[in-house]
Amino acid sequence: MLPGKVQQLVSLLARLPSVGEKTAQRFAVFLATRDPEGARMLGQALIEMSDTIGRCQHCGNLAEMHGDDAPVCDICADTRRDVSTLCVVARIQDLMSVERSAAYRGYYFVLGRLLSPLEGIGADELPLEALRRRIDGLRRDDGACVREVLVATPPSVDGEATALLLAQELKDLDVNVTRIASGVPHGGDLEYADPVTIGRAIAGRRDL
Amino acid sequence: MLPGKVQQLVSLLARLPSVGEKTAQRFAVFLATRDPEGARMLGQALIEMSDTIGRCQHCGNLAEMHGDDAPVCDICADTRRDVSTLCVVARIQDLMSVERSAAYRGYYFVLGRLLSPLEGIGADELPLEALRRRIDGLRRDDGACVREVLVATPPSVDGEATALLLAQELKDLDVNVTRIASGVPHGGDLEYADPVTIGRAIAGRRDL
Repeated sequence: MLPGKVQQLVSLLARLPSVGEKTAQRFAVFLATRDPEGARMLGQALIEMSDTIGRCQHCGNLAEMHGDDAPVCDICADTRRDVSTLCVVARIQDLMSVERSAAYRGYYFVLGRLLSPLEGIGADELPLEALRRRIDGLRRDDGACVREVLVATPPSVDGEATALLLAQELKDLDVNVTRIASGVPHGGDLEYADPVTIGRAIAGRRDL
Repeated sequence: MLPGKVQQLVSLLARLPSVGEKTAQRFAVFLATRDPEGARMLGQALIEMSDTIGRCQHCGNLAEMHGDDAPVCDICADTRRDVSTLCVVARIQDLMSVERSAAYRGYYFVLGRLLSPLEGIGADELPLEALRRRIDGLRRDDGACVREVLVATPPSVDGEATALLLAQELKDLDVNVTRIASGVPHGGDLEYADPVTIGRAIAGRRDL
């Protein structure tokens, strides 16, 4: 029903997360009719991105590539950060959330996936070796090095399992493995919080 | 936080309908990390589309451009269709829905917008002249021409207002202006249908 070139665009758009055939059609028709200039710019931005953006060799964050060198992201390239903590996150978006909070000034490591028995993802599919290399590689000339690994995986079943696995795996290293707090979110209502969240808020209580 | 090229991609993706900053970031990170080949193909498809796809000069549907000729869509180019009815729809997606139903075999006209007092869209912003030209232009050598204009705008306030306007506007022509039925949808439950829908189903009842 749609011209072939538009149909091809629809199939490619439908590969995006949480985008189905109908939404992809809506995007394609919008780009073709309301925003043709935007379509061209988007096309160029996509090609440029696939030419110049890779994963940081140290942490897995997105990074600009310069020639044939393995890319290093802006965070890993920043030598003024606190070298004593390394924050482990599941996804690049989680890294961005932690950065936005401005509550953390150390370095990161992106796992890319979580331990998930249900989806058949075991410990051997997590980049544990790369994590060890990152911990080892974070060293300053004055001897400062990683003292704490803050596990900021989500407080879900898979996220908790991954956190426990990391604590186990890094036991032999001289680092403190810590976990972000789970509890009632800022501005949240106790009335609408689920029992597990309330339970965690109580278990994680602290002195005032 | 994201490399500049990725941030630029995020801003362009956020122009898509119902896509906000967060969703655009998710799309961009997905394309950069999980589907880099798809990102390049999507980019090429977008550029190709903006080079080769335009609006049909007759009906406003999407159409492939060939050289400098004003484009004509596959439907308008198909001379085997029933020339006696012209279906008026609001959007290209609605045309596709009617086509999928296989209940209609005539030609189309895409308005592109609906009369909307709330959004300040008046009758002079609807392509009424182009609609008249389309009705006039649909003629076969044997004298067959448009006898019925089926208004398939949605049964919303704006869609109904547009349908009434079209009936008024086309009064001087020798065509029957008809309207799609509104009622309880196939497989729908009367219990959960809203009162207006039930009212329309009753008002539109027919003999068995």
